[in-house]
Amino acid sequence: MKAYNIAVVGPLGVVGGKLIEILVERNFPINKIKLLGTSRNKNKKIKFHGQTLLTEVAEEGAFIDVDIAFFCVDSNVSKHLAPIAIKEGAVVIDNSSAWRLDDKVPLVIPEVNPEDLHSHNQLISNPNCSTIQMLVPLKPIHDIFKIKRIVVSTYQSVSGTGKKGMEELNNQLLDYYFNTPMTNSVYPHQILFNALPHIDDFLENGYTKEEMKMVNETKKILDKDIDKGRDEDGQ
Amino acid sequence: MKAYNIAVVGPLGVVGGKLIEILVERNFPINKIKLLGTSRNKNKKIKFHGQTLLTEVAEEGAFIDVDIAFFCVDSNVSKHLAPIAIKEGAVVIDNSSAWRLDDKVPLVIPEVNPEDLHSHNQLISNPNCSTIQMLVPLKPIHDIFKIKRIVVSTYQSVSGTGKKGMEELNNQLLDYYFNTPMTNSVYPHQILFNALPHIDDFLENGYTKEEMKMVNETKKILDKDIDKGRDEDGQ
Repeated sequence: MKAYNIAVVGPLGVVGGKLIEILVERNFPINKIKLLGTSRNKNKKIKFHGQTLLTEVAEEGAFIDVDIAFFCVDSNVSKHLAPIAIKEGAVVIDNSSAWRLDDKVPLVIPEVNPEDLHSHNQLISNPNCSTIQMLVPLKPIHDIFKIKRIVVSTYQSVSGTGKKGMEELNNQLLDYYFNTPMTNSVYPHQILFNALPHIDDFLENGYTKEEMKMVNETKKILDKDIDKGRDEDGQ
Repeated sequence: MKAYNIAVVGPLGVVGGKLIEILVERNFPINKIKLLGTSRNKNKKIKFHGQTLLTEVAEEGAFIDVDIAFFCVDSNVSKHLAPIAIKEGAVVIDNSSAWRLDDKVPLVIPEVNPEDLHSHNQLISNPNCSTIQMLVPLKPIHDIFKIKRIVVSTYQSVSGTGKKGMEELNNQLLDYYFNTPMTNSVYPHQILFNALPHIDDFLENGYTKEEMKMVNETKKILDKDIDKGRDEDGQ
């Protein structure tokens, strides 16, 4: 079995940490692995298959010899770094929203549209987490019945906000326990024992970014005709 | 202003406690107040407007001289006690699901269908909490546009399960904090940091009791024709 030279970009975040866990869990065929972060986070120690690896800096030259680079960083970082990684020969699999709606980039859920992988140009994009969870069960239904419209409500976890969200939750839990005043800075309200009916920023059309991600990504992955009647019949 | 003789049935529960708080907050015109619970919970002390009241037993004879009895008890208790209270002359305002779909009992949200109060027979029923929250904003929309169908997702709090649910949440919070094993008996899964996509028992039609409460109560309060097309077009 071929073994790959791998890079994980953003190994210290929640998603990067989980990705490293999964590579281990699945015994992914790895020849060499590089953990690439910011220059501020250089030489941090991360456990991998019993070894201790040191993080390196994600910069020009870091992707030479890398076969697959898993990007677990935010959109702006991905926009800057993915072209560098591609130029140096890596295939980038990107978790951010940076490339999802780019026509030249396949947006892939392996259980839904694996055939779209065939035409990648060293860049493959991963949908929003809510889109993935929604489309896996809807794909076989769509194949048989053809879905016209989807009404969806999501119940999203604090971990979706990343480490800073989870830390705020944990601090509020301690404040609750010790009866000290709760503070919040990541969320606009207390998040402990709460559900906020709002995710991401509002756009001009009155929907939030997160909501429109689900609409646009679903059209790209499953069927561009889904929700076509929206504007005509005003629903 | 006329002052009333009031009874609160179930004063030690979460709902009863809240009701007592609201009577104080609104300065409800009270002549005498009685707090009626089970014989096991006789003579419990409850603060009210700076006084300390003792609970009495909710039984035959307890409702003589009571003008309004607020029932904050479960359905079975209400079925047994409400006829007794009515017979002894009280007007019962019931929070349980016992009488909601009874044709002779008005089901009232003051902001939505206050006119239904005019024909009560000493028994007025209060809808499910989710029905109330949903119908207050939908009423003016329905008046203008006529609603045909409602798609609703609820995000319900642990307090909806009553004191035992809140205690389980609190115990799991301590277990999390002290890193001791979490246990659960009220909910089928850990409820701390969780959302369970299921509320109340399933019925033969595949919906849960809570879901059908919202359907049936909405038809009674707002418009019996809402959702009429459900069976015909299979949606």
